[in-house]
Amino acid sequence: MTSPAVSPADVTAAMQRIRAHVRETPVLVTRAGELGLPYGVTLKLELLQHAGSFKSRGAFSRVLAAASAGEVGPAGLIAASGGNHGAAVAFVARQLDYPAEIFVPSTSPVIKRDRIASYGATVHVIDGFFDDAQAAATHRQTESGALAIHPFEHVEIIAGQGTMAVEIDDQVGEYDTVVIATGGGGFIAGQAAWVQNRRRVVSVEPSASRCLYAARLNGGPVTVEVGGVAADSLGTRQLGSLAWSIVQHYVDDAVLVDDEDIRSAQRALWDELRLVVEPGGAAALAALRAGVYVPEPGERLVVAVCGSNCDPNSVTG
Amino acid sequence: MTSPAVSPADVTAAMQRIRAHVRETPVLVTRAGELGLPYGVTLKLELLQHAGSFKSRGAFSRVLAAASAGEVGPAGLIAASGGNHGAAVAFVARQLDYPAEIFVPSTSPVIKRDRIASYGATVHVIDGFFDDAQAAATHRQTESGALAIHPFEHVEIIAGQGTMAVEIDDQVGEYDTVVIATGGGGFIAGQAAWVQNRRRVVSVEPSASRCLYAARLNGGPVTVEVGGVAADSLGTRQLGSLAWSIVQHYVDDAVLVDDEDIRSAQRALWDELRLVVEPGGAAALAALRAGVYVPEPGERLVVAVCGSNCDPNSVTG
Repeated sequence: MTSPAVSPADVTAAMQRIRAHVRETPVLVTRAGELGLPYGVTLKLELLQHAGSFKSRGAFSRVLAAASAGEVGPAGLIAASGGNHGAAVAFVARQLDYPAEIFVPSTSPVIKRDRIASYGATVHVIDGFFDDAQAAATHRQTESGALAIHPFEHVEIIAGQGTMAVEIDDQVGEYDTVVIATGGGGFIAGQAAWVQNRRRVVSVEPSASRCLYAARLNGGPVTVEVGGVAADSLGTRQLGSLAWSIVQHYVDDAVLVDDEDIRSAQRALWDELRLVVEPGGAAALAALRAGVYVPEPGERLVVAVCGSNCDPNSVTG
Repeated sequence: MTSPAVSPADVTAAMQRIRAHVRETPVLVTRAGELGLPYGVTLKLELLQHAGSFKSRGAFSRVLAAASAGEVGPAGLIAASGGNHGAAVAFVARQLDYPAEIFVPSTSPVIKRDRIASYGATVHVIDGFFDDAQAAATHRQTESGALAIHPFEHVEIIAGQGTMAVEIDDQVGEYDTVVIATGGGGFIAGQAAWVQNRRRVVSVEPSASRCLYAARLNGGPVTVEVGGVAADSLGTRQLGSLAWSIVQHYVDDAVLVDDEDIRSAQRALWDELRLVVEPGGAAALAALRAGVYVPEPGERLVVAVCGSNCDPNSVTG
C-alpha cells in the first residue's frame, strides 16, 4: 500500500489559496420521489462553479501555489484537456492575467473548445484523443517553459478538487456517503483525501470508461479502453498514480453505469430542476437511479452534480 | 393608507403549512466583476423551485389551507395563468392527488402549456390574454365548484410567496435590500409582508408592463398596457388589491427595465452560470446590470432569480 499523496492539511491549504477565487457552490435537498429516487439526497451543485465544473478548484490551487513560488513565467499556463480542465485553466489564466495554451483532442465537443477560446486562451486542436493532446502539450511545454497543469497528476490539483468536500462538511453537517463521478481520479481522490474514513466514498464510472474500477480489480492503475456518452469528461485510459495512492485507502465502493442511465439522469435533472448537466456531471445521480448503488435505510447521501458543459439541445431537446 | 392584508404571522403560518412540500432553494454569492456587476450580490435561485418558479409556494399555501378547512371538493382545483402559476397549481394538484383545470391564454408560450399538461392537469387554451383566461376560469368555477386559485388575490397566496424571504433570512443573515421582479404583485408583496421595514424592497418591472410603477404614481392600482419579452410572466394589467395594501407601505423603490436589458441578463446567467432563466426571472438582475437601480457603497443585495420556464433555445442559442 502506498501512503496517500494528499493529506487533509493539503486540502486545507488549497482552500486557503483558492477561497477568494472560487464559488461556494450551493446544495439542494431533494425528498423521496424526486428525480426518480425513493429517498431524498443532497445534491452538491458543483456545475455552478466557474467555467462550469469542479476543475476550477484544482486549477486555481495549482496555479496560485506556483505563482507564490515564482514558478509562472512569461509563457503563462499550458494544459491538455478534453474540455472541462482546459476551460478551467483558461478561466484561471484570464482571472490572474496570464497567457494560456490549451491542447484539445479533435474528439472533444466543439462547445467545450468554444468555451476555452471564449476565455481568451489559445486553443490547439490535436487529432486523436486526450493522450495525443497531452503528448502535444508536453512537447510544447519543453519549448515554451509555461507552467504545465496536468488534470490530475499534481498534489495541488487533487487538494484543490478536495475543497468541495470541505464546503460540503460546512453546508450539510452530518452525512454518511458522498457519490462521485470518476474520470482520471483527481476529483474523487480530492474528496477522499479530505473525508478519509469519516464518510463512505463511492465512485461512479461509465461502463465504457472504467479506469478506477479496473485499478481496484488489478491492484493498481491499468490501461483500459474508453468510450461512451461521457467520454469527453470521464474517458481516461488510466487512473492517475497520485489518485490511486488515495483511492486505494479511502474509496469504499466503485460502480458502473450504462450510457442510457446517464442520459436518463440528465433528462431527470432537466425535467425536475431545469438544470443543463453534461453526461459526466449526471453519472453519480445515474448510479442511484439505476440501482447500481443502493443505500442502506437511513443512509444520508451527498451526490455531486459536477459539470454543465454540453450542447444544451442534447439535454433539453 | 390601507392596512397590510398580510402580516409576518401569516407568512410564518404559510411556512409551517408548506415546509414539507417545497424546496429550500439555494443561494449563490457572486463577487465583483461577475454577471457584469462591479459588486457582488447574493442570488436566490428560486428558479430551482418545484415547477420552475416561486409560484409553487403560494399554490401549496392556498391549497393546503383550504384542504385543512375542508374546502377542496371532488372538482379539485381551478386556475387561470399565463404559465408559471398554472404549472404550480398543476404540480400541487398532482402532489396532493386532486384533479385540476388550468385556463391558459393563447398568447402564452407552448412550453408552459406543455409543462402544465405534463403534470396531468386539464389545459384549456383561451383566445386572448390573461384576463380572458381568468374570465373563462371564473365562469367554469361557478359550474364546477372547484377551489379557485387566483395568482395573487388571496392572503394565503401572498403569504406563501413570502416564505422565500423567511428562507433568505435563514440563509443569508444580514443584508440590506431584496430586488424582486413584479407581475401582479403577489411575489413582491409576500417578501415585503415578511421583511416590512427591516430591509429595502425594490420592485423591477419591464418598461412594457408596469402596473406597480403605475400604481405608485397613481396612488393606487390602475389599468396599464402590457407587452414585451416578459409579458407571459410579468404582464399583468393591474396590480392586485391585496398586494397594493402591502406594497404601499413596504416597497422602497420601483424601477423599469427594457426588453434588451432582460435578454442581456438572461444571456449573462447562461454564459456565467449555465442557468436557463426565463425573461421574468432575469428582470431583477437586469435592473442592476442596466444601472436603473444603483446600490449605495456597501449595500448588501439579494436578487431573486425566480423562474426557468422558457424555450431553452431562446437563451442558449
